[in-house]
Amino acid sequence: MARSIQSGVLQPGERLPSVRQASAARGLSPSTVFQAYYLLEARGLVESRARSGYYVARAVPRLPPEPDTASQPDGLSREVDVSELVFDVLQSAMQRDIVPLGSAFMSPLFFPLERLGRSLATAAVHLDPWSTVDDLTPGQAALRRQIALRYLIDGIEVSTDEIVITNGALEALNLSVQAVTRPGDTVMVESPCFYATLQVLERLGLRAIEIPTHPRDGIDLDAMESAIARHAPRACWLMTTFQNPLGSTMPEARTRALVELLARQGIALIEDDVYGELHFGARRPLPAKAFDKDGGVMHCGSFSKSLAPGYRIGWVAAGKHARAVARGKLTSSLNTNVPTQIALARYLERGGFDRHLRRLRRTLQDQQAQYIAAIGRAFPTGTRVTRPAGGYFLWLELPEGSDALRLQRQASQLGISIAPGPMFSASRGFGHCLRLNYGHPLDARVDGALGTLGRLAGRG
Amino acid sequence: MARSIQSGVLQPGERLPSVRQASAARGLSPSTVFQAYYLLEARGLVESRARSGYYVARAVPRLPPEPDTASQPDGLSREVDVSELVFDVLQSAMQRDIVPLGSAFMSPLFFPLERLGRSLATAAVHLDPWSTVDDLTPGQAALRRQIALRYLIDGIEVSTDEIVITNGALEALNLSVQAVTRPGDTVMVESPCFYATLQVLERLGLRAIEIPTHPRDGIDLDAMESAIARHAPRACWLMTTFQNPLGSTMPEARTRALVELLARQGIALIEDDVYGELHFGARRPLPAKAFDKDGGVMHCGSFSKSLAPGYRIGWVAAGKHARAVARGKLTSSLNTNVPTQIALARYLERGGFDRHLRRLRRTLQDQQAQYIAAIGRAFPTGTRVTRPAGGYFLWLELPEGSDALRLQRQASQLGISIAPGPMFSASRGFGHCLRLNYGHPLDARVDGALGTLGRLAGRG
Repeated sequence: MARSIQSGVLQPGERLPSVRQASAARGLSPSTVFQAYYLLEARGLVESRARSGYYVARAVPRLPPEPDTASQPDGLSREVDVSELVFDVLQSAMQRDIVPLGSAFMSPLFFPLERLGRSLATAAVHLDPWSTVDDLTPGQAALRRQIALRYLIDGIEVSTDEIVITNGALEALNLSVQAVTRPGDTVMVESPCFYATLQVLERLGLRAIEIPTHPRDGIDLDAMESAIARHAPRACWLMTTFQNPLGSTMPEARTRALVELLARQGIALIEDDVYGELHFGARRPLPAKAFDKDGGVMHCGSFSKSLAPGYRIGWVAAGKHARAVARGKLTSSLNTNVPTQIALARYLERGGFDRHLRRLRRTLQDQQAQYIAAIGRAFPTGTRVTRPAGGYFLWLELPEGSDALRLQRQASQLGISIAPGPMFSASRGFGHCLRLNYGHPLDARVDGALGTLGRLAGRG
Repeated sequence: MARSIQSGVLQPGERLPSVRQASAARGLSPSTVFQAYYLLEARGLVESRARSGYYVARAVPRLPPEPDTASQPDGLSREVDVSELVFDVLQSAMQRDIVPLGSAFMSPLFFPLERLGRSLATAAVHLDPWSTVDDLTPGQAALRRQIALRYLIDGIEVSTDEIVITNGALEALNLSVQAVTRPGDTVMVESPCFYATLQVLERLGLRAIEIPTHPRDGIDLDAMESAIARHAPRACWLMTTFQNPLGSTMPEARTRALVELLARQGIALIEDDVYGELHFGARRPLPAKAFDKDGGVMHCGSFSKSLAPGYRIGWVAAGKHARAVARGKLTSSLNTNVPTQIALARYLERGGFDRHLRRLRRTLQDQQAQYIAAIGRAFPTGTRVTRPAGGYFLWLELPEGSDALRLQRQASQLGISIAPGPMFSASRGFGHCLRLNYGHPLDARVDGALGTLGRLAGRG
């Protein structure tokens, strides 16, 4: 119905079906319909009139269009030198009272930290002392089994043996890329890509080749194929699902083709899938790991974004590279916090994770709509905004000539953080783009900050 | 008194002073003297005769002599290729029912895991959700303050600002060496040195130069000075206190000279001090960090060996390299488990750590004496054994011609693990040496295992 209103099928002022009619026509309970109308009203799409019912709002909010062209990186392989910029921006966003539109984290209030805390308390008090010796890398057996079970439910074949528990997904990604590269090697990344990817490549002395990436459908395989021919990369590191920062999700046919292309060329795939659980659709989009036949895909996941921020429990299903990854872990951090592994295994065994996820997904989906509407109100004409099907990031293309780095500096002085486009590119592209986090409730303070940002952006 | 007996000052069959005499002469309580005699009896050094008192045992156990010559590495700088050997040995020691003489861990039963568990339970249940966002690297403020306080008590000046919390000391060591080197650089290490040091250098593409090291007094500074002239190393990585595997402790004057030499040459020092809290003497030997004037010493510590195995909380006091270390951490594992950091801070604030440490040190000191006596009974003449003043490792030099790698394979098949000398050397030296862990109670099973090892060693 929101789509019908925004596309003009339902005209301003037009009366909506009554709750009773709509509930009969769609086979929904009246309370569900009522709740839907209530949400539409909250978004400013419909108005209720006393004793009369719901009507399409007279002034339907204008929603900014989606970006619709893939990026055009320059095709060069290069050493990475972006870390200072990223740290500068992150440093300015560290104060607790700043509006966290540039943050990488969603609100910690959305997680079942109390129930998790009780699991951790039980695990800690009843810890078998010998588990501190036995539950060494690759990790605690019950937790690895629970993770393998979740793959199974999602239709992805992963053996417990290939799972290595890590200190968050970032360690999993580091170990994975180290397992298949040596300093000086080239790695294919998306354009734009997650800034930490670039920082890791920089720290490890690896070269990056940026591949054109579409803000809705992800990385371009034709471009990848010619980059492989020109640069002989050792690995590809990307996010098939709710990519950070674009929010793009590769169609499954393309994901399958990606896996086949890389397998043919003998190139390892490091798949960062930390947002996969935060899908708004009925099921989780299949990651590349689902199409992996020769064990060349290293699928990195985490509980930090879906369940337990601050617990630092991630993992990699590393296929044929599992032994190399585990050995890398044994010589870089030895092991992962044992009581926390046991606590998460216990939480997953007891159930409740899926109920929590369903609630969290609804919250994020609703916040996305609210943020996009607010951006539509505040930002200048010509601004484009993505419509990710999950996660909690929006990617904005400002009108040509805008300077997101300048906007970031101005906003920072006003107590607002944003993540400017050049953070996400080895070639410092995307100067007119930014990433906004919609993982915090859109309260008056955030609404005001979006208004401020829009005004600043409107000044060019 | 044990020394007097073993050196022959007190002769077999000679009567000891009565408890009353000894207590008066030494200003000790009778119960303390009685306990000392009881321990001497347990070690087989004295015998009690009914209604007559204590006598020096007729057959005083022969204690093996200490090793007394420094190692003689070949002076070459080399790429490291030891990881496969180390992993093979560690793999064979992983079974829970193996006698853990080759283990790197002491008995987990020696730690206050219940009280720690209650701290963790409280921290977990009362977790402030925002702490998962705020307590980012460099780490939780209260824990860093507690660690700085402990330095202060030990007379070491360390600022809270230079402390970075890590996933155990191994991550601290990795981040420290990465902060000051690039692949291809050369790092000075002890000969022998902790095998994980060699594995890290190997993984990071660094070269090792082994410096002669004395089994009692540590690394040789003259040799270091000429190695600096020949190899221009970027860093030195060592353990001043209870070195693994030798158990050596550098005299403080030598430690001071080490710091001055490296500062003069502009070479960073990575100091692994994870056993420092396990001292048998009245106070902790001062580490190199205590003599650091220009911030070039990165002092790495951990709670894993002293308080909380499996919790994976370590740190580095990184001096002028603290910012580089923190940035390395932000791009390699982002952060350390937050509830565990809070729990340890709380445990340290409440007190009890020192009481636990005093008990643990007594236990380990007593076990060391028992193990050395058992080794004296079981191993062939010509075997030498160190007398570390702390920690829980003994270093054995077997008679010339012995083959510790063969011994390790034979022992492994009999359910006994040992750590053979070549694990601890980039040049695979120390073929007739091994490290034994005395951090588990010397029960009948361990005693039998030592007997078996001694017989196997005696066959050459």
